[in-house]
Amino acid sequence: MTSPVSPASLPAPPMRWDGWGDPDRETVLSESVLALIRGALGVSGTPTPRRSLTDVEVAPTRLTDDDIAGLVERVGDGHVSVGGTDRLLRAAGRSTPDLLRRRAHIQAAPDAVVLPGSTEEVAAVLAWCADADIAVVTYGGGTAVTGGLTPIAGDHRAVISLDLRRLDGLAEVDDLSRIAVLGAGVTGPRAEELLGQHGLSLGHFPQSFRFATIGGFAATRSSGQASAGYGRFDEMVVGLTLATPRGVLRLRPVEHSAAGPDLRQVVLGSEGTFGVITEVAVRVHPVPPTAASQAWRFPDFATGAAAVRAAARSDARPTVLRMSDEAETAVNLAAPGAIGADAADAPGGCLVITRFEGEEDDCLDRRRRIAAILSDAGGVDLGSDPADTWAHGRFDAPYLRDALLAIGVGCETLETATTWSGIEALRTAVADALSNTLGTDTPDRPGSPALVLCHISHTYPTAASLYFTVVYRLADRDPVAQWMQAKEAASRAIVAHGATITHHHAVGTDHRDHLDAEIGDLGVEILRAVKNALDPSGVMNPGKLIP
Amino acid sequence: MTSPVSPASLPAPPMRWDGWGDPDRETVLSESVLALIRGALGVSGTPTPRRSLTDVEVAPTRLTDDDIAGLVERVGDGHVSVGGTDRLLRAAGRSTPDLLRRRAHIQAAPDAVVLPGSTEEVAAVLAWCADADIAVVTYGGGTAVTGGLTPIAGDHRAVISLDLRRLDGLAEVDDLSRIAVLGAGVTGPRAEELLGQHGLSLGHFPQSFRFATIGGFAATRSSGQASAGYGRFDEMVVGLTLATPRGVLRLRPVEHSAAGPDLRQVVLGSEGTFGVITEVAVRVHPVPPTAASQAWRFPDFATGAAAVRAAARSDARPTVLRMSDEAETAVNLAAPGAIGADAADAPGGCLVITRFEGEEDDCLDRRRRIAAILSDAGGVDLGSDPADTWAHGRFDAPYLRDALLAIGVGCETLETATTWSGIEALRTAVADALSNTLGTDTPDRPGSPALVLCHISHTYPTAASLYFTVVYRLADRDPVAQWMQAKEAASRAIVAHGATITHHHAVGTDHRDHLDAEIGDLGVEILRAVKNALDPSGVMNPGKLIP
Repeated sequence: MTSPVSPASLPAPPMRWDGWGDPDRETVLSESVLALIRGALGVSGTPTPRRSLTDVEVAPTRLTDDDIAGLVERVGDGHVSVGGTDRLLRAAGRSTPDLLRRRAHIQAAPDAVVLPGSTEEVAAVLAWCADADIAVVTYGGGTAVTGGLTPIAGDHRAVISLDLRRLDGLAEVDDLSRIAVLGAGVTGPRAEELLGQHGLSLGHFPQSFRFATIGGFAATRSSGQASAGYGRFDEMVVGLTLATPRGVLRLRPVEHSAAGPDLRQVVLGSEGTFGVITEVAVRVHPVPPTAASQAWRFPDFATGAAAVRAAARSDARPTVLRMSDEAETAVNLAAPGAIGADAADAPGGCLVITRFEGEEDDCLDRRRRIAAILSDAGGVDLGSDPADTWAHGRFDAPYLRDALLAIGVGCETLETATTWSGIEALRTAVADALSNTLGTDTPDRPGSPALVLCHISHTYPTAASLYFTVVYRLADRDPVAQWMQAKEAASRAIVAHGATITHHHAVGTDHRDHLDAEIGDLGVEILRAVKNALDPSGVMNPGKLIP
Repeated sequence: MTSPVSPASLPAPPMRWDGWGDPDRETVLSESVLALIRGALGVSGTPTPRRSLTDVEVAPTRLTDDDIAGLVERVGDGHVSVGGTDRLLRAAGRSTPDLLRRRAHIQAAPDAVVLPGSTEEVAAVLAWCADADIAVVTYGGGTAVTGGLTPIAGDHRAVISLDLRRLDGLAEVDDLSRIAVLGAGVTGPRAEELLGQHGLSLGHFPQSFRFATIGGFAATRSSGQASAGYGRFDEMVVGLTLATPRGVLRLRPVEHSAAGPDLRQVVLGSEGTFGVITEVAVRVHPVPPTAASQAWRFPDFATGAAAVRAAARSDARPTVLRMSDEAETAVNLAAPGAIGADAADAPGGCLVITRFEGEEDDCLDRRRRIAAILSDAGGVDLGSDPADTWAHGRFDAPYLRDALLAIGVGCETLETATTWSGIEALRTAVADALSNTLGTDTPDRPGSPALVLCHISHTYPTAASLYFTVVYRLADRDPVAQWMQAKEAASRAIVAHGATITHHHAVGTDHRDHLDAEIGDLGVEILRAVKNALDPSGVMNPGKLIP
C-alpha cells in the first residue's frame, strides 16, 4: 500500500527533515569526546542509521479528487499537495522519539498539505474539513517536542497538515501602544527582523527561536530564555485571532479587562484543538541598545536556588536568569561539545547566568543591584565570559543531539515547574526517576548509566521551572519504548509532587494522559466543552491535549 | 403579598444597607458646598428620602419547609434564614441605581440566605440547588456596582443568597514561595491582618477594600489602587478552588504552565455564573517597611498621559500611578468636599499621584528615577502633600455619594480601558456621551449640566484604564432610568472605540448586553459552553455576565 515518495511541489519547511535545524549544518563530535561518551555510557552497538527521504515509503493519500478540488477551491492553485515528500516533511516534530521514528522505512504522514493565505482561507478550510470529516493538524515551524504534529486522523477519514507559512506578515504596528500584530506563520527571526524595521523587538527567544513561529508560540504557551525580562509568550499576547470550524474569534488587544473570563488565556495553549491561531497581537519594546552579562558560581543547588529566587523577586530583574545544577555546570564549563566528560575534571558548583538588556546606564545599574543580591547569597563572580559563551551557543544544543544519535546515544529534554518550596524535592525525584528507569535492566534491554543534567530555566516570584537534559545509551531494540518508559517515570514523579506536567513544551500526545491529574475531571470537561463549542465535529488536532 | 420585614437572625453584613460603608459614619456637606452644587447643577427639588429598613416590604420566601430543611441539612442549624431583614440586607450591591432602588417601599430580595462553612458545604448546597431548581447568588462584601448581586431567579422557582462570610480563614502560608491561601469570605482588611501576622501583605487596595472580599476580587477581576506595583487581582491569583453544582475544581498554585489553556483565567471573572470560588491562592510579598509619595502637575491631559505612559514602562515602576484630568484635578486640589466648586478658582492642569512602597533605599531610588521621567515630560513637582492627602482619603469617596444623594444629586462612576493610542479619543467620547445625555431635555425630564471627572486609574505598558465620576442633578421621576440612559450612551461610546466595557467593575447585569460586541458570538458561545459543563441546570447567578 505504501510507495516511495514523489518530489516536493511545495516550498519545504526550512529544517532538516529528520533532525534539528539547518540541513547544511553538521555537528561533528571529536574522537576524544566520542571515546569518553562511549566509555561513560557503555555505548558499543551500531546505531540505526539515518534514512534518506527517497528511501521512505508512505501510504497513499486517503483524499479523493473531489476532496483535493475542495481544498484547492479554498486556498487556490499551487497551495495544496498530496505528494509524498510534501506530506512526509510535515509528519513529525523534533522530539527524540520523533527523530527515532524518522529512521523507519514506512512512515505515517498527513494525507495532504494545505497552505492557506489568510484568516478567511483558514476558516474556509476548517469549515470544509468539518463537513468533509477530515482532521486538521496545524504546522508552524515543526519544532514541537511533545507530539503535537503527529498526523492522527482519529475517528475521521483522513488528516491534513495546515502549514501557516504564508501567514508571514507584520499586519500592524501601534508604536504609541507598543503593540504589533504578527501573522501566525512568522518565525522568531523574521518577527525580530520585521519589528526591527520599526526599532522594536519582541524578545521571545526559546531554544526553537530560529525555526518556530508566532502561532506555535501562542498555541503551546512557549517561554523563552529572556522570560525573566520580557515574560512568557502568553504574557506578551494582548490580542489574537482564532479561526475555527464555526467561524472566527477575534479578541481585541485590550487584555486588562474585567469583562468576564479571559478568553485569550483559553486560546493560548489550545494546541490547535479548538482552531487555528492566525494572527497574534503582541506587546513589543524598543530594541535594547545594550546587553550586559555576568556569570556566577554557587557551591550547591540549594544555595544557588535561594540566590536566584531573591534575584527573581528584585525590581532590578535580569533579562535572563538561569542556573545549572552541578552536573550541567560541569558540562557547560567544560570544553564545548564535551558532554559526557568526567565531571571531576570540570569546575564544581552551580553556574548562574545573568544578562541585562536595555539602555546602557540602566543595564549596568540593574547588573550591579543583582550582583549585590547574588554576592550576598554566596555567589562567586565568574565575569561575563561564561554568560557570553552561553548566549553565543544558546540555540545550538539541539544540533548536538543529532550527533549523539548518530553514535547510538540518546539525548532528550523534559521540563516542569513548581513553587519555590517544592523545587529541590522535585529535582531529586525527577532525576532519580530518569536515572533509575534508564539504568535498570529490563527483560528486553540492559540498563545503562544515564547522565541527567538540570537547570532552573525560568523564574517567577512564586515559582520556577526545571529543565532536564538526559543523555543515555540508546537501546538496540525499540529505543522509542525505552525513552517512553523513562519519560513515564519522570511524569509520574512530576504529578506526585504537584508540579505542572509541562512548563513550556505543551501537552501534545506525550503529556495528555497526565493532564487530568493536574486539572481534574472538571477541568478536562471544561476543555471538552470549549472544544465542542468551536469544533463540534472534532476535526481539530484529534488525539492531542484533551484526554 | 409583601409584608414588613422581621428582624435579622443572621449576622448582618457590615455595610450600611442602603448606602456605602460604616453605618455609623455620616458625611455632611457644608452649607457653602451645598450652595455651590445647587447652583452649578440647578438642583432645586426635594429628593426621595432614604427609607428605614422597617418601612420596607418584601415578598414572602418562595422556599418550602422542605427546601429550608434541605439547606439546613447541608450547612447546619443557624446558618439559613428566610427572614425579611436577612434577605433584604443581601438584596443589592452599591451602584447608584442599587441605592436609588433602596428607596422603594416594596423591594426584591433573595428567598433565603445561606451561610456555608466550607468548600464541601458550598458544593453540597449548589448540587442541592441544581436538583431543587433554585438559583444561587453568591454574596461577599456587597460592594458590587454592576448588578452582580441582583436576586434574579431566572427560569428557576426561587433564588438564594449564598453569603461566604464563614469562609474567613488563612488556610495556608508558604513563606518560601510567597503564596497564601485565603478563604473567599475574607475581607480586604482582614486579609492584610492575617497576612501581616506573617510579615506579609497582599497589596490589593480597590476603593471597596474595606468591605469587599477575596472571593469577590477573584470573581470580578478586581483591580486595586496599587496595581502598578502589585498587579491586578487576577495577576495575583496563582491557584483557586471553585465549587460548582457538578463538583469541585481545584487548580494548584502553579500558574506558569503550558498544560493547556489557563483555567484560572476561566474562573477569574466568572462572577458566580460557573460556580462559587471558595479559596484563592495568592502571591504575597513582605510588608513594605516604607512608602514614599510624590505628586506632579502637568499642563494638560495629553502631556500628562504621555508622562504616565513613560513611567508605566519603567523598571522603576511606582506602586501607585494615576492621573486626574483637569476637572478632577480642580476638585481634588480644592478644599475637601468641594465637588462642584468653580474650576476656575482651583489650580489648573492635571494632577499625577505617585507612590512607592518597599525598602527605604529602594523607594527613594525608584521615586528619583520616576521623578526624572515625569520632570523630563513636563511635570511640575508638587511635593508629597497632595499624594498623601489622596492616600488618606482614598477609600472614602463613596461616602460622599450618600451625602449627595441626600440633596438630590446623583453621583456614579464607570470605567473602561484601551490601548494608549486610543486613550484620548475614548475619554472625549465617553465624557461627551455622559454630558450630552444628562444635559439634554427629554420628554419626561429636563436636562441639567453634569460634572464629568476622569482619571487614568491603572496603567500598563500597552494600555491604561479611564475612570469616570459623574455628578448630576437627579431626575425627580425615575432617576434610575435617567442614569441608565446616560450609562447606555457611555457604553455605546466605549464599544464604538474598541475599548473594554469594563476594566475592573465586572459585567453583572449592567454590561451584559455589551459583552458580545467585545468577545463576539463565538466568545459568548465559549462562556455558555463552560457554564453548561459546570452548571447544566443554569442555577448559578442567572441573568449576569453571559448574554
